[in-house]
Amino acid sequence: MRTAVTDMLGVRHPLVGFNRSPGVVAAVTNAGGFGVLAATGYTPEELDVQLTWIEEQVGGKPYGIDVLVPGRIAGSDPHEDVASLRARIPDEHYAFLNGLLERYDLEPIDRSALGGDRFAASVGAEIVQPLLDVAFSHRISLVANALGTPPPGLVERGKSAGVVVASLVGAPEHARRQLDLGVDLLVAQGTEAGGHTGTIATMVLVPEVVDLAGDVPVLAAGGIASGRQMAASLALGAAGVWCGSVWLSSHEDITSPVVKEKFLAAGSGDTLRSPTRTGKPARQLRSAWHDEWAAGPAALPMPLQPVLVNEAWRRIDAAAGAGHAGARELESFYIGQVVGGFRRLRPAEDIAREIIDDCEHVLRSLS
Amino acid sequence: MRTAVTDMLGVRHPLVGFNRSPGVVAAVTNAGGFGVLAATGYTPEELDVQLTWIEEQVGGKPYGIDVLVPGRIAGSDPHEDVASLRARIPDEHYAFLNGLLERYDLEPIDRSALGGDRFAASVGAEIVQPLLDVAFSHRISLVANALGTPPPGLVERGKSAGVVVASLVGAPEHARRQLDLGVDLLVAQGTEAGGHTGTIATMVLVPEVVDLAGDVPVLAAGGIASGRQMAASLALGAAGVWCGSVWLSSHEDITSPVVKEKFLAAGSGDTLRSPTRTGKPARQLRSAWHDEWAAGPAALPMPLQPVLVNEAWRRIDAAAGAGHAGARELESFYIGQVVGGFRRLRPAEDIAREIIDDCEHVLRSLS
Repeated sequence: MRTAVTDMLGVRHPLVGFNRSPGVVAAVTNAGGFGVLAATGYTPEELDVQLTWIEEQVGGKPYGIDVLVPGRIAGSDPHEDVASLRARIPDEHYAFLNGLLERYDLEPIDRSALGGDRFAASVGAEIVQPLLDVAFSHRISLVANALGTPPPGLVERGKSAGVVVASLVGAPEHARRQLDLGVDLLVAQGTEAGGHTGTIATMVLVPEVVDLAGDVPVLAAGGIASGRQMAASLALGAAGVWCGSVWLSSHEDITSPVVKEKFLAAGSGDTLRSPTRTGKPARQLRSAWHDEWAAGPAALPMPLQPVLVNEAWRRIDAAAGAGHAGARELESFYIGQVVGGFRRLRPAEDIAREIIDDCEHVLRSLS
Repeated sequence: MRTAVTDMLGVRHPLVGFNRSPGVVAAVTNAGGFGVLAATGYTPEELDVQLTWIEEQVGGKPYGIDVLVPGRIAGSDPHEDVASLRARIPDEHYAFLNGLLERYDLEPIDRSALGGDRFAASVGAEIVQPLLDVAFSHRISLVANALGTPPPGLVERGKSAGVVVASLVGAPEHARRQLDLGVDLLVAQGTEAGGHTGTIATMVLVPEVVDLAGDVPVLAAGGIASGRQMAASLALGAAGVWCGSVWLSSHEDITSPVVKEKFLAAGSGDTLRSPTRTGKPARQLRSAWHDEWAAGPAALPMPLQPVLVNEAWRRIDAAAGAGHAGARELESFYIGQVVGGFRRLRPAEDIAREIIDDCEHVLRSLS
């Protein structure tokens, strides 16, 4: 399968696999696709270790990284510290959170403990630049930007280093903005995707972005976890696919066993787009957490909502892992609608090879 | 393009066109596809006239009808009359509606005038049976059921008359129920579709329903308005496509010019799923109506919400057509996300031929 993307990335198959686990990234690259590591969850030191490990596994084959940089965080000052953000959490929201935890038999959180997590502090350009410095010191072939506009200077830095700069877009106007900035590759991500996502479905968004993009290749994302869906994406005009959720059914993925168990039991209708974790709509598995918030206050904007809830989620994850019943009811994670197709956990390389083989089979059968 | 559906329906191309305008139905059939008339908006006498006209246009080529029968209307008695339903409208909702109309410079509606429209009274089995009697007295080849389970006896009646019985489904559990009832054809409709729709996107829903359906063929619906999207649907395993929204960009479609003008100006992100017209989530063009309801009471269940709003909509449509500024702001209609691709109004037969030709081109280029 040769497309504009296989040429651009130097891979055999136009299948990009995005995940926060280095094992998945290496497996996708080793299957002839292109693995992309979600870098924002790591410190620069950790990222350095992970990229070194990936390079040992893939033996010169190409891979990339993804950073999460919201273009605009409503009312936020990138220099504002966690203590100041914490003080801006309304009493109503703080009380609602502790009431929720209490109903599920979990300890309340002291206001001074809110926002201890990395996420709240890790979305600004100051945090991303050291990660990019580490990444550019490695043999990366691509940097993708998952939210909003790329960090300042990234497009130029990519061009001078021969590194492809890609951006995820969920609407045609986002695509236009990224094309104006000069990105090399667009990822058109439909509403059915896991994580931060818009409202337009992949079936509608991909051909629209392809038509806007001209010579810039487009990867389809959202709802793609099989060869049939990969073939459909190529029919829509995409030069390849960007798969995220499907790797959460792999052995290598580091998501907790409790969450993976819930994923295996879920149907395609069991996700929802909710702003209750990050402050922006992100698709995740529906759980008691969302049913509670449906009767609660409106979520706060990013970065206040993560400051409010991230410590709670750290505790929910830990308690669920230790068998706590209430925490298991609340437990959830970001996932797309393809979760309905998860049957069992498998090696990531097997998943990648099956998608590629089935896609080739579908393409042959359509002709 | 030969598939299980072209054989079943006796057509050259697996393209089904659904619309409430007989002119569109005839045009799709005459282009080598299969036209389906939305029958529920007509009285039995009107339907008889429309089907006779269609048959004159298509010269023996096949066509079908679609009826709207919700499986279960919460708390409703099929024998309850409009006066009784009207009395069950809460004062809060009635006052909100008149306040809304007043803000857009439209006259308030007397409570006794609520629910004068056909829709509220036309969803029960008693209303559908006479329509089916008319349809079965004509040369129809298919009856499709758009909401919930088919009317009692329809599957048997179809089998004995050699008429294909199809059902629209928006979730795998709906597909299982319809398969158990013995329908001949499933239409898997993704969330991006116009009108009543679920939450699962076409890209995810279609392969899931195909896998459940075994030998029963599946049409893909939702987000399909071009040859690329038709080819993608075939890649997903569908035996053809069911297109609805795209015909609202045709000359033959009877939707008002004001609405069509709004459609031509709309983007793919300008629709939303809202229960504020029928009481069930239906995708429609976002307008001032929806912005108002976002700050209003929760929509009532079907059939109370249509009893509340249908007379208001009759007046909004009439006033918008007469150039009333407030009514134009409120004006809206059911439409899918493909509305973003509408560029100009065209003959329905040209639209059908272009979808088919482009699909064949994409299939050749993929091989």
